[in-house]
Formats: sequence, C-alpha cells, structure tokens
Amino acid sequence: MQNWHIDYHTPTRGLGFAVSEHLYRETSPYQSIDIVRSPDLGEVMLLDDVLMVSSVDEYVYHEMLSQPSLFCHPHPERVLIIGGGDCGTLTRVLLHKQVKQVIQVEIDEMVTRVAKQYFPQLTACLSDPRAELIFADGIEYLRNNHNSFDLILIDSTDPVGPAAGLFRKEFFADCHRALKDDGMLCIQSESPWIPDLLDLITEVNCDLRALFGNVFPYLAAIQTYQAGLWMFQLASKRYSPLEQSVLMKIDADAMNFRYYNAEIHRAAFALPQFIKERLS
Amino acid sequence: MQNWHIDYHTPTRGLGFAVSEHLYRETSPYQSIDIVRSPDLGEVMLLDDVLMVSSVDEYVYHEMLSQPSLFCHPHPERVLIIGGGDCGTLTRVLLHKQVKQVIQVEIDEMVTRVAKQYFPQLTACLSDPRAELIFADGIEYLRNNHNSFDLILIDSTDPVGPAAGLFRKEFFADCHRALKDDGMLCIQSESPWIPDLLDLITEVNCDLRALFGNVFPYLAAIQTYQAGLWMFQLASKRYSPLEQSVLMKIDADAMNFRYYNAEIHRAAFALPQFIKERLS
Repeated sequence: MQNWHIDYHTPTRGLGFAVSEHLYRETSPYQSIDIVRSPDLGEVMLLDDVLMVSSVDEYVYHEMLSQPSLFCHPHPERVLIIGGGDCGTLTRVLLHKQVKQVIQVEIDEMVTRVAKQYFPQLTACLSDPRAELIFADGIEYLRNNHNSFDLILIDSTDPVGPAAGLFRKEFFADCHRALKDDGMLCIQSESPWIPDLLDLITEVNCDLRALFGNVFPYLAAIQTYQAGLWMFQLASKRYSPLEQSVLMKIDADAMNFRYYNAEIHRAAFALPQFIKERLS
Repeated sequence: MQNWHIDYHTPTRGLGFAVSEHLYRETSPYQSIDIVRSPDLGEVMLLDDVLMVSSVDEYVYHEMLSQPSLFCHPHPERVLIIGGGDCGTLTRVLLHKQVKQVIQVEIDEMVTRVAKQYFPQLTACLSDPRAELIFADGIEYLRNNHNSFDLILIDSTDPVGPAAGLFRKEFFADCHRALKDDGMLCIQSESPWIPDLLDLITEVNCDLRALFGNVFPYLAAIQTYQAGLWMFQLASKRYSPLEQSVLMKIDADAMNFRYYNAEIHRAAFALPQFIKERLS
C-alpha cells in the first residue's frame, strides 16, 4: 500500500491522497514545510501539514486572488502582497503591464527559498525588476504605511499560527490606511462549507464592511483546499468589480489564464443562497 | 481512533471522513447500499462504497440538477426522472406547481426503500399524487416512448455498473425522441477536476450537441462529490436558460432554496477557462 497523506479540513474529515515521494522537509521558526509528490496533485507544498500549493491546480487560487481586483482597479500601479511566499500570486500580478511595483512581505524566507527549488515556475518572476521581496512581519510592515498602495492582496495561510493576525480588524484598519483613496484590498477568506470557517468569513465581512463600505465576496472552486470551495473578499474604497467596463477589459486568452475569464469574473460574485443569507 | 471511510475519487485520492455509526447494509442484484453517520456529513448513503447522498449537502446536487431546467421551461408539466431513487430530485421537482406529473424510473427499489427509512425528508414527497414511481430499467422504459415529456432529468450514479448505459449516445437519442418538440434534458455529468471524467464530460457534450444542437453545461460546488465541483449538462430543443425572462421568475426565498437562486442560475453557466477551451 502506498503512503497516504490526509489533509485535515476538520478533525473528522479531509482530503486523502497518495504520496509517491517525500522530497523535502524543514522547520523554520514559524512552521514546518514538506514537499511531496502525489500521482494526482503533482508536487505539493505542505505548511504545518496543511496543503498550500499543488502543481496541478495552484493556478486557480493564484489567478482568483489576484485578477478580479487587478482588472477592477483602473490603474493598479503599486501593489502590496502580504504573505504569498511561494510567489504564485506575485507571478500573476506581474502579468499586468500597468503594475509598476509589487512589494511582497512574507514572514518566512524558508517558503520562498524552498519554492525556488520545487516550484521554479512560480518563482521565475523574481527576476522582474518590478518585484521587491521583504522577509518581515506583514502586520508590523503595514503599521508604518500611509496612503501608498493601490492594491493590497492578503495571501495568507489558514487563520492559526503566524497568519492569525491577518484576519483581525486592527490589521484591516492598517490596510485601509495604507491604501490610497481609491485603493482596494483582497483577502483569501477560507471555505464556506466548513461551519467554523463560515463564521470567520462572516466576521471578516462585517469588519471589512465597517471600514470600507463596499465589500464584494466571491468564490472559486479549488479542489485541493478545504471542501473544494474557497471564498475571497474584495474590499474597495471606490471601484466596483461588477461594472460592465471591467468585464470588457478581461482577455483570458491573451494572458493564458486557465481558470479566470470574463464570465468567471462575473459569476464568482454570485453567492449560493445559504451564504447570501448569512452575509446579508 | 475513529473508523474512517475513504470515498475514492481516483485510486490515489479521495474524501476521508470519520464514521461514528454504521447504520445499515444491504446488497441488491444491482449494488450494495450502506448508511453511515458522520460527524461532518450527517447521514450518508453509499452505493457500492461511493458517496451518493449526505444529509448536510444533498440540497446542492438536487436543487442544481432540477431547478435550472424547471425555471427555463415555460410549462414543465410532464417530467421524467431516470434514477433518483433517494427522491431528493423528485422532492425539488414537485415544488413547481406547474408540474402535473412526474414519473420516476429507478432500477433498484432497495434505494428508495432504504431512503424512506434514513432520509424521510426526501421521500415524504411520495404522498404527492403527481408522483409515480416505476422500478424498472430506465433505458428499456425510454425505448417505448415518443414525444411525451417536457423534461427528462438523468439522476444517475457514476458511469460504471448499472448506470453506464445512461451516458451513451443511444440512450440520449431515446431521450430526444421521448421529449416533446420543445423538450429539455438535464444530466449529471461528473467532476471536471478528474481527468478521466473531463473526458467523459467532453464526450457527453459532443453526443448531446449532435442530437439537440443547444447544450448548456453548468457547474455547482458539491463538497461531498469528487473534487468538490460538479458538472451538469442541459440539452434543449428550443429554450435557452440564459434568457433574462428565466432569471426574473426565480424566487429563491419563496421556494426555500439553500443553494440555488437567480444569481447562481446565471453564474452556474460560466465555465472556467480550461473547461471552456476543452468543450469549444
């Protein structure tokens, strides 16, 4: 029998997958990292035993975290990524020629170093002169920032351990202050199918609404994350992602997207009735 | 340690969940049935060890198989369900007052009998005088039918064993002949995330297009099915589900839907880029 890994979604359910090879293991001051190979999921990165990146479907999460806000903002020139050490989000931000500078603040240099070895397709973008990597605590970094970004993307791990603070109201207030008057924030906010996480989604939604006024939750089907459905929340000071003019700009063919396109952009903001009722 | 069940999606991946109680087991001439209780998924029905129904999310599959075509067809009076022994689809069809008769042809009476005991919320609808149950082979039943249904819903198990014939071109041709001149067919067609199943989806799409001309594939997020994303295909002789007039009719509150609503109806037909390219 092959070795199996269970990626726990709750203590009593999870995604099980065969592991054909255990390629790497290391522990940093923040977390453990494992790289394994799976027949179904390709190369997989686990942080503290939780699946973060798989080579077969990393594009869904990374396209969907980055593209809706990038296409919505009319001039996304200065972008900040908090977390995102694997550089999959950074890769997709840099696809936009309008972007002049991307600062990525990742707390754990180990993640980027190991991604360079096992996910070189994601880290190749680091040679782009517009990309600047800072290995530091994103929360501390943002405390000293005022009115300087067009877009902030929060590309964090689950809300435990080093990432817990990235889901708190105080941090969102720092993000709000660090954004320009027409800035936008997009945060990954976990799976609505897991009851505890739906509570978190609701809390994040309330906190962002109190600060930004306009919050647009949206969904993507991510087979390797908890229960296969993932929520993002786009908080905006001015622009709406639902304008027809935004849809007109999206050319999925030209940018080689594999999940995102104009129809998906619009559709992602439609919420199943149970989520709509919960967030209303 | 608790007892776990792995619902295999391929030989090397699957959904694992704890089983707190094994409530029932029986074997019919067609398949085995197990009813188990899970902390996360509630009561679960397994057919040949594959998860078919869970009490926590059965509504997603059943609403999404039935409602898009029921709202699209202007007068869905005579409806045929092939399979559907748990009666979850039948329950949702009968929500529509316009429906005058629903014939359900299920090959295995064991499924309905066991559903009556463990999923009474799904079988309560059997007291509705508009519902007629026939325990027979759906393929044989349809061979003798001409021009008699407004809507056919194919609510089958996976395309192996007794359900394999329900994914074949010859069967679709029988469905086409059994439908009225403005009839519609909707079939569950598995998960696009599993490569072999994406091949099946593509084949079903080609076969339906050859017969019906208009085929509208659509998606729903079903956490308990393979890889969490499920495809349905709506083949139509005349009507389009994308008309604004269809959306105007959908009142999710009035019908107590938990997943489906007007926004989800429209959004479900948006396909991720990799599926769009594959089906084009």
